[in-house]
Amino acid sequence: MPRGYTFGRAEEATHPDSARATLAEFLSTFVFVFAGEGSILALDKMYRETALGASSLLVIALAHALALFAAVASSMNVSGGHVNPAVTFGALVGGRVSVLRAVFYWIAQILGAIVASLLLWLATDGLKPQGYSVAAGVGEWNALVMEIVLTFGLVYTVYSTAIDPKRGSLGTIAPLAIAFIFGANVLVGGPFSGASMNPARAFGPALVGGRWRGHWIYWLGPLLGAALAGVIYEFGMIQTETPHHTHHQPLAPEDY
Amino acid sequence: MPRGYTFGRAEEATHPDSARATLAEFLSTFVFVFAGEGSILALDKMYRETALGASSLLVIALAHALALFAAVASSMNVSGGHVNPAVTFGALVGGRVSVLRAVFYWIAQILGAIVASLLLWLATDGLKPQGYSVAAGVGEWNALVMEIVLTFGLVYTVYSTAIDPKRGSLGTIAPLAIAFIFGANVLVGGPFSGASMNPARAFGPALVGGRWRGHWIYWLGPLLGAALAGVIYEFGMIQTETPHHTHHQPLAPEDY
Amino acid sequence: MPRGYTFGRAEEATHPDSARATLAEFLSTFVFVFAGEGSILALDKMYRETALGASSLLVIALAHALALFAAVASSMNVSGGHVNPAVTFGALVGGRVSVLRAVFYWIAQILGAIVASLLLWLATDGLKPQGYSVAAGVGEWNALVMEIVLTFGLVYTVYSTAIDPKRGSLGTIAPLAIAFIFGANVLVGGPFSGASMNPARAFGPALVGGRWRGHWIYWLGPLLGAALAGVIYEFGMIQTETPHHTHHQPLAPEDY
Amino acid sequence: MPRGYTFGRAEEATHPDSARATLAEFLSTFVFVFAGEGSILALDKMYRETALGASSLLVIALAHALALFAAVASSMNVSGGHVNPAVTFGALVGGRVSVLRAVFYWIAQILGAIVASLLLWLATDGLKPQGYSVAAGVGEWNALVMEIVLTFGLVYTVYSTAIDPKRGSLGTIAPLAIAFIFGANVLVGGPFSGASMNPARAFGPALVGGRWRGHWIYWLGPLLGAALAGVIYEFGMIQTETPHHTHHQPLAPEDY
Repeated sequence: MPRGYTFGRAEEATHPDSARATLAEFLSTFVFVFAGEGSILALDKMYRETALGASSLLVIALAHALALFAAVASSMNVSGGHVNPAVTFGALVGGRVSVLRAVFYWIAQILGAIVASLLLWLATDGLKPQGYSVAAGVGEWNALVMEIVLTFGLVYTVYSTAIDPKRGSLGTIAPLAIAFIFGANVLVGGPFSGASMNPARAFGPALVGGRWRGHWIYWLGPLLGAALAGVIYEFGMIQTETPHHTHHQPLAPEDY
Repeated sequence: MPRGYTFGRAEEATHPDSARATLAEFLSTFVFVFAGEGSILALDKMYRETALGASSLLVIALAHALALFAAVASSMNVSGGHVNPAVTFGALVGGRVSVLRAVFYWIAQILGAIVASLLLWLATDGLKPQGYSVAAGVGEWNALVMEIVLTFGLVYTVYSTAIDPKRGSLGTIAPLAIAFIFGANVLVGGPFSGASMNPARAFGPALVGGRWRGHWIYWLGPLLGAALAGVIYEFGMIQTETPHHTHHQPLAPEDY
Repeated sequence: MPRGYTFGRAEEATHPDSARATLAEFLSTFVFVFAGEGSILALDKMYRETALGASSLLVIALAHALALFAAVASSMNVSGGHVNPAVTFGALVGGRVSVLRAVFYWIAQILGAIVASLLLWLATDGLKPQGYSVAAGVGEWNALVMEIVLTFGLVYTVYSTAIDPKRGSLGTIAPLAIAFIFGANVLVGGPFSGASMNPARAFGPALVGGRWRGHWIYWLGPLLGAALAGVIYEFGMIQTETPHHTHHQPLAPEDY
Repeated sequence: MPRGYTFGRAEEATHPDSARATLAEFLSTFVFVFAGEGSILALDKMYRETALGASSLLVIALAHALALFAAVASSMNVSGGHVNPAVTFGALVGGRVSVLRAVFYWIAQILGAIVASLLLWLATDGLKPQGYSVAAGVGEWNALVMEIVLTFGLVYTVYSTAIDPKRGSLGTIAPLAIAFIFGANVLVGGPFSGASMNPARAFGPALVGGRWRGHWIYWLGPLLGAALAGVIYEFGMIQTETPHHTHHQPLAPEDY
């Protein structure tokens, strides 16, 4: 948890650390969405066709995983490395960020995604961002279950490697665990729901590309999956500790 | 080894640390099996054909490796990050977990695999989990040898990077070594035995999908390979230390 | 920042640490360019065709990412692991290297890229290095925007994980973050501008292969993107710290 | 450098640490060669054809890189994680291992490769290991240059991340740097010389499969490249240190 965690709310809004954390979320989400959505436009440029093959799936999964690693690592020690409104929501549900900080992060993440989508449109000479849509032959409710389960796995990983005060030496590899489960989950959900797991990642391209069909799935699914992971981890794993637990003490910077 | 290692058995069953470790094994195995088996269903959705090409093999290997990294990293400091009944068996053979803890872990791992298979079935609108089967043109005994050797390599890596009390700084990269050898081994064994190396990973989809042909291979092979690695490593590498060895002392948390 | 940062300029030129840092930049850039450009010649050898498919894009992206990781990790503690004139320029703009050291690095990086291209030509029995060119159907100004944005993401990652004095434990994973964002960005920009992000990487093969069309893009784009990242990070993230900031003190070796 | 470095030679031969280090080299080379050569037989099983496509090249490169990471990580703190006679030769040339220890390692590495090839033959129901051969249209001397340069890059990475006494925090990521440059180099040299970089990796399959054509290239190339890297790194990077250098002192275990 960033040091801002123990600040009062009015102070938090203008504190340099809050400003830096919010800027970090903006920049990291920008980098992540540019690469993630950009990889889809790269395939579009090469193929001009919609059929998704195994190699294309690998390109998309790796672009997301590799860029997410850099994005999370870059902002980890400043903002906690959320880069995803669903992750921020999971942390909020578990009481790990204040409401005010969560709102700052959400705005920064969504703006980062929009700017990335606009610059992609410029750099590719007008290719329309695609965002996510449910694949043919897949029901909307099935896609919702997919997004819930995939995001649950993502936020469980975030909690156990980056938030849990007893995670110990895992802090160093947290960005890798987060990026890798994201990549694995794209390999699973890609041909069904698209495997967004991140409402900002879905919203930026939808806004710039003007494609809103089934968009609600990419908010409801990730937020539900993240909340579920936050509750299960917070109460199943952290609160069941032996008496001399440490998580009610103010967290030192190196604890986050 | 988790701190529970030195507890008496009756106490162990109800101790919060045991409960947390068992829950961690359940959640991590769930995440791993959902991604591993899910990647196969994703290919099934895209192709509706059974032929395995190089790109498909990459998808399956990377889905397993990336997800296993997150699953092991997430549970490493809580349960030891087994996520696999064969790994637990190898640790049991080498005297590194108690029988009671092993039984808890096995139940959690198998339940996690079953729940993952059920949710996959739901999220994919009824695609049947496939699990593992021996490829056409490969004998059952050849497949058994393959599973033994692949699991030997996996558990040798687990022992040397995560269990060996003298592994030193390797603890940080243990989840990566474990995930990477798993991925490499899928690239080898995929077209022959399927490269399960994990009885829970094989059992969950077999139960939900109702495919049991040759299932015994995916229990006997991994358990034999793991036991072999446990015995060779424990007696060849750990017990041959110079006199002032440390592995008979109770293990501090940071030693595991 | 290497220890040479606080030296006077005349002394710096002959100091063993400067010589070692410059040699490290030469060797690491050599290794990186040999693998990066070499992967393109490998595809050329296999296919003798120019169409870029998803699998080929993966080969190129992974060759660059994997080799860049080794190149940055190898030189990180000696020279700062730039391996790229644009990264050196970004560090110069932010006041993190002296002009003299930057000039040494640039010469070493460019020489490394030339030697790598020559040895590739020898090892492949005369295949002509290709370097970068703008893809058919993409405007030069679009390609310039692409190189600017991709390099911005790269140098933002370099700043936040390897240069920021408050990056903390991120130092260990800096080479990974740098390599991974490079790989992700190749998956995006590959089919448009080629995704060079590195003027030395573009210059060596251009010189040996004699292909200069649009070459200015591969200097102007990366240098602009790097400068932008340096300015934004230095003034937006580092300078907004709370009063007891540390970045004006001479940097100890472990701070870099 | 393992602690055995300062022992007298007669004592070294029977010291438990030497025995453990030699066993670690045997086991790790076994795991690496089984996966590396096995990935080639997996493609053989799937395709029964010899043409190498981009996806197949990825399978081979990733199988080697992922398995080498596990192999090096597993043996790093015991034997130094050579897993390759050329790496041992480079360390010998730089004065970093004794001749006696090098001979032990070479025997262990070669035996590990032979046993891996035999078990592969058994597990695949008689598929013949293929080892390496120079591709059609590539000269033997070109292939030799390729192996020299590729192995130079590999051993330069080994020296800078795992042997250099001043490598500092890089020790943790050394296995990753070594594995990744190996994978990148396979993506380059695969379609030309095969990119062995490791005489044991070439010898085991050659012996079991009975294919010796051009085999000398896979000894001479890697050994020359490794020696060159050892000499350049030892005298260019380590010996040019400032006066209070530390590399002539006996190395403590954590220095290796």
